[in-house]
This record gives sequence, structure tokens and C-alpha cells, in this order.
Amino acid sequence: MLMATRGPVLVIGTGLIGTSIALGLHGAGVPVYLSDASPTSLALAVDMGAGANLADCPDSGEIRLVIVAAPPDVAGECVARALRDFPGAVVTDVASVKESVLDVLQQAVNTDEDLTLANYVGSHPMAGRAVSGAGAAQSDLFVGRPWVIVPSTASSAEAILVVRNLAVDLGAVPLELSPDQHDRSVALVSHVPQLISSLLAARLEQATEDDLSLVGQGLRDTTRIAASDPRLWTAIIAANAKPIKQILVDFQQDLQTLIERIDQNGAVGAVHNVIAAGNRGVGRIPGKHGGSRSQWATLEVLVPDEPGELGRLFSELGDLGINVEDLQLEHSPGQPVGLARLALNPQVLERAARGLESRDWRIVTVGEH
Amino acid sequence: MLMATRGPVLVIGTGLIGTSIALGLHGAGVPVYLSDASPTSLALAVDMGAGANLADCPDSGEIRLVIVAAPPDVAGECVARALRDFPGAVVTDVASVKESVLDVLQQAVNTDEDLTLANYVGSHPMAGRAVSGAGAAQSDLFVGRPWVIVPSTASSAEAILVVRNLAVDLGAVPLELSPDQHDRSVALVSHVPQLISSLLAARLEQATEDDLSLVGQGLRDTTRIAASDPRLWTAIIAANAKPIKQILVDFQQDLQTLIERIDQNGAVGAVHNVIAAGNRGVGRIPGKHGGSRSQWATLEVLVPDEPGELGRLFSELGDLGINVEDLQLEHSPGQPVGLARLALNPQVLERAARGLESRDWRIVTVGEH
Repeated sequence: MLMATRGPVLVIGTGLIGTSIALGLHGAGVPVYLSDASPTSLALAVDMGAGANLADCPDSGEIRLVIVAAPPDVAGECVARALRDFPGAVVTDVASVKESVLDVLQQAVNTDEDLTLANYVGSHPMAGRAVSGAGAAQSDLFVGRPWVIVPSTASSAEAILVVRNLAVDLGAVPLELSPDQHDRSVALVSHVPQLISSLLAARLEQATEDDLSLVGQGLRDTTRIAASDPRLWTAIIAANAKPIKQILVDFQQDLQTLIERIDQNGAVGAVHNVIAAGNRGVGRIPGKHGGSRSQWATLEVLVPDEPGELGRLFSELGDLGINVEDLQLEHSPGQPVGLARLALNPQVLERAARGLESRDWRIVTVGEH
Repeated sequence: MLMATRGPVLVIGTGLIGTSIALGLHGAGVPVYLSDASPTSLALAVDMGAGANLADCPDSGEIRLVIVAAPPDVAGECVARALRDFPGAVVTDVASVKESVLDVLQQAVNTDEDLTLANYVGSHPMAGRAVSGAGAAQSDLFVGRPWVIVPSTASSAEAILVVRNLAVDLGAVPLELSPDQHDRSVALVSHVPQLISSLLAARLEQATEDDLSLVGQGLRDTTRIAASDPRLWTAIIAANAKPIKQILVDFQQDLQTLIERIDQNGAVGAVHNVIAAGNRGVGRIPGKHGGSRSQWATLEVLVPDEPGELGRLFSELGDLGINVEDLQLEHSPGQPVGLARLALNPQVLERAARGLESRDWRIVTVGEH
């Protein structure tokens, strides 16, 4: 693929995100240098083919783009240092919060009249893994994910273009937001859901074996992200406390109203309000391809729990020319059969159901999502 | 299949659950009669082959088992009437809460010295659909699902056996709990997660388009059940207010602690406590086949978003003799490629990864779950 990004590029911080960016660029022929406070992490990234050690760079004045891939609590200082060390380069960072990084930079500018933020553009590639570190890195990490571009008021148009090209080169979908907008958005769609899922999962610490034997897909889904890394998430959430707190307070007010009324005469109305408001909120989440989720129809099919059966299902859907928009496979403890819940274009639903039934698949439900 | 259940069986209430039970029994040759307050719903169930209209029963004294499939707020009265009308039959109900049903029955016994609960055994088949009514019923609804058997202290051993046989005949996994245990368990694993998911999704009512453009799989998973039916869930939750309230109060205390500390000096410690407790809680959820989720390894594969590609993936996994334990398909807004996250037995992980790579699949991540 022809890359818009011109090197040499320097990636500071060879964790999961930094090494994945370096792999994507270096694999496409862009010269990449690497640095990290940990010599072990740096050596691993070099061994993986992510680039060369910065110490081996013949002329660091040639570097055109510096990507700071450090945790949010050190990203600001790290960017300020890069702006001084590489005055000819555009500098970006990839921290999951943006205002706190900019605050540190603004302080640096206030105390150093030679420093400007014209060459700095913040960014946030919204991708991650359950596993961390250079060893988990991969060049496809950003494909199809949003990559938020967060200019400061001082950022030059050229610098913004360099960072947008970086996102597009790595297959991401770029999107420009102000630091304040970005931080409020991720508080709502990422940080608060993480905390609420963790708070809910924490209630299971005291669960009995009987309780756990009744767990279904609903609880599994609501608590899946509660398995996230505590160190990484603590740094992210602590750095975005203000917008998170506001949403938590609003959540708590709704919860308080519910608690006050749930065993009173008003229980039915209070519970109905909560469930109905949830219906309206979840209805706003866009589906795959940016569509609303309600645009898909659901087809549920029983699948024997044996090698090749899911293959047969999807082969036969392929034969029918049916594209599966989304899929969930439901657990059936102790049972040799699974339930595949397929999201399909409503226009092909009936054809899919008839076609599968004629091929001896057991259709469980056909309906709008 | 040879059924242990002996008919004739009467199903009172031909909604989703009642009609599904009737379909399962009648389809296996057990004589089934049906009744419902709605003649339309009753006629639909009869047309679907779920059984005959009770009005056509030559001798209702022959009925051996009555299944009350009415909403939780009317189930108790309905069971009391059935115990009087069919003194020779075992009577069960399928309401999602059990203490409130038993309270109504106990009051009926206290005011009617001819009535005993020897023939009554509560039950709760833990299955459902996003769609409701007889039209959505299907005989496989209970396959592999837990079916809680809830005897009263007065229930006879014979009556308990009849209800357990019913659960097993329909492919469910029976499990005996006291009414109190049952209600506390479903409050924890089902009712509170429903309310928390709804409260979280409700925060999206005011979301901007920018917010929504950043939504990822985490928020989708945590809010999926927020799309549930408000009427059904209001009846269930209002009937189980006491144990639900206790868990909500505990949740709120943790939330309050977090809110108090999140923008103070103690933020890091408070956030870390929440995330770490969530890790411990979610780690207790059993995986498919009753195993812990950590027993599966993860393989992530890029899948072109075209008909037949998922089919080719699963066919080739089948060729390799690899069974997929679980699967998630990740959304990629605006991108012609999806990410299939496969859960596999760790012993076949390397073989699966090598086999797929040799067939030109792009493996994104290989690792422990």
C-alpha cells in the first residue's frame, strides 16, 4: 500500500499501541526508529520488526514525525520533551485522554518562550487488546477503528494533515474533535461503561454457587469488560475524572430515585421509567456500517457443538448469497448444542430462513431485532 | 424421545413460555390441553399444534399436570384456582419470581382449610426471547437452559419428581432451590444486571452524534439487554423488589465511594479498587460447558465482509478438526473487514493458527483468553 506518511518516524514507547503503529508503518516501508525507557521492551519491538533502535539513527534531525505512545500520566511531559528535541518534526501522542495532556503542554509553553504547540496534534486511536505489551502488538490493530484527531488551538494545518495521514495509513477512520469534546465523549461511551460494568461484576464476589449456576448471556455481556487491566484503566480514568464524575452523578440520581421507590407503591412506575429510558438510549447506538441496530433482523439457528457445523452453516449461507451482519454464539452449559444468533438484512431474512430450513437447519426464531 | 411426563397436561396461559412448553410436550406425543384469557392467543396456540382447547376436554378430572404460565402478578391466584379445580393434578407455575407467588398461595391456604400445597411445586425455566407471545413460541426454547425447581415446604416428593421430569423432558437442566434462594439468585444474576444496563443505556439519551461515533464493543455489550421489553421486566422486577433493592443499595454504596474520591487525591486508589473488584467478580462467572472462561484461548482472525467468507473460515476450521467454543464478531464501522474472535481449547490453538495462516487467513492475535 502506498503510504502518505513520510519518515523517518520515531515511536517513543514500545507498548501495545506504539509497537502496533511502528509495525504498521515499518511493514509498509516507512523508516521507523524506536525508543523506550525499558531496554527489554525496546529490544522486543526491534526483534519483531517494528523498526530500529533510535540509538542507531545516524541523524535524528531528519525525523519528521514523533509518536508518543506513553501512558496518559506521562504523555504530556514526553510530548514537551519531543517538541524540544525534534524541532523539525510533527509530534503526536496516543493517550486515551486529551485535556490533561494539553494542560501539561500549556504549562510547559508558559514557562518556555521558545516552545510552541504549532507542531503538536493530539490523537487517540480507539483500539486495544485484552493483552498488553510489545509482544501483543500487531499492524492490523487500527483497521476499521475510529482514530480521533485532537488539534490544539495552536496546531498548524500541516501538522493536522500529517496526523490524519498516519491514521488513514494504518487503516483507521479519522475523526476530528476538540480536547474537551473528546474527553466527554470517551467518558460517556467508554470510561463510565467500564466503571459500571466493574461495579456490577464486583457484586459477584459474594455470589454463591447457586447464583452462578443461573448466570445467562445477559450477565455475561454486561460484565465482559469488567475483566479489563486495572493498571491501564486506573490511569485512564483518573486522568479524565471530571467528565466521568458528572455522568456518574447523573447515573446515581436515577439509581437513587429507583431505590427510593422500588419497594413502595410507586415501584411499577419507577421500574418502567428505568427500562423505557434504557430502551430509548440503546436505540441510539449505531450498528455495524454506521446503521442503527434496528435495521437488522434476527435469525436464531441451533448448531450442534461439533467441529465443522458452524462451517456448514456459514458455507450454506454463503451459497445462498446471504451476508451475516453480526453474530452471537450463545452458551448452553452441559448441552451439545449451541444457538447462533445472526443479524441479517431484513430483505434477505425470509430467504435465509427458508434456505436454511430446506438444508435441515433448525430455525429457532425469525424476527426483527 | 421417550417422555417421562404423563398426560393429559393442561397449560394455562398461551404466551411465549406456555406455548413453548405445550409445543415441546405435544410434539413428543403427550396429550396437552390449553386455556387462556385471550381467545385469540388460545386459537393461535391451537393452530400452531401446541394442543387442544380445554373446552374440548372430555374429562378434565383426568388431567395429571397443570402448568400455570401467567405473569408473576397473577400467577399465585391462578395456581390456587388450579389446585381447587384439578385436585388430582400436580400444579406448577413458571413465574420468574417465586416468593411472591408462594405468599399468595399461603394466604389462600390460611383462608381455605380444604386447600393444601402438597401438589404444588414452583418452577422457573430460565429461557426467553426478545419477542413475546404464542407466535414466537418454539419447542426448543428450554434446551440446555437452567430450569429451577422450587418446592414449598408442603410439596410432596411425588409432585417434585413430576416437575423435574417436565424440565428434563423439555431438554432443560433442572436445579432445586428454595423460593428465597431462587429470588435472591435471579435478583443478582438477572434483575439487577437488567436495571444497571438500562440505567447505563439511559445516559445515551442525551448523547451527541460525536459521542455515538466513538461507540465500541464494550458499550454495545454492556447495554445489549437494555433493549428488553419494559412491560414484562417491570412486572418481574416489581415482584422481586426486596432482594433487588438490597443489591442496588450495595452497588450504590460502592458508586458513592467512587464518586466522592474520583476527583480527589484518592482517585487512583478508588478507581483501582473498583476495577480490581470487577476483575474478581467476573472471574467467578462459569464459561460454556460449566468451565471457567479462562480455560479458553483466543484467536482473532480478520474476515472480509462478504458472503461466504465466514463460511470459508468455519469450513476450514472444521477441516482442521477444530471446534469453536465461542465466537464474537466485531463491528468495524465503515470498513469492509470484520474481526472474528474465536475461543478455542488452548491445546488446539497453535494448530488452528498455523492451519489458518497456511490457508491465507490473517491472524490478528493469538493468546490466552
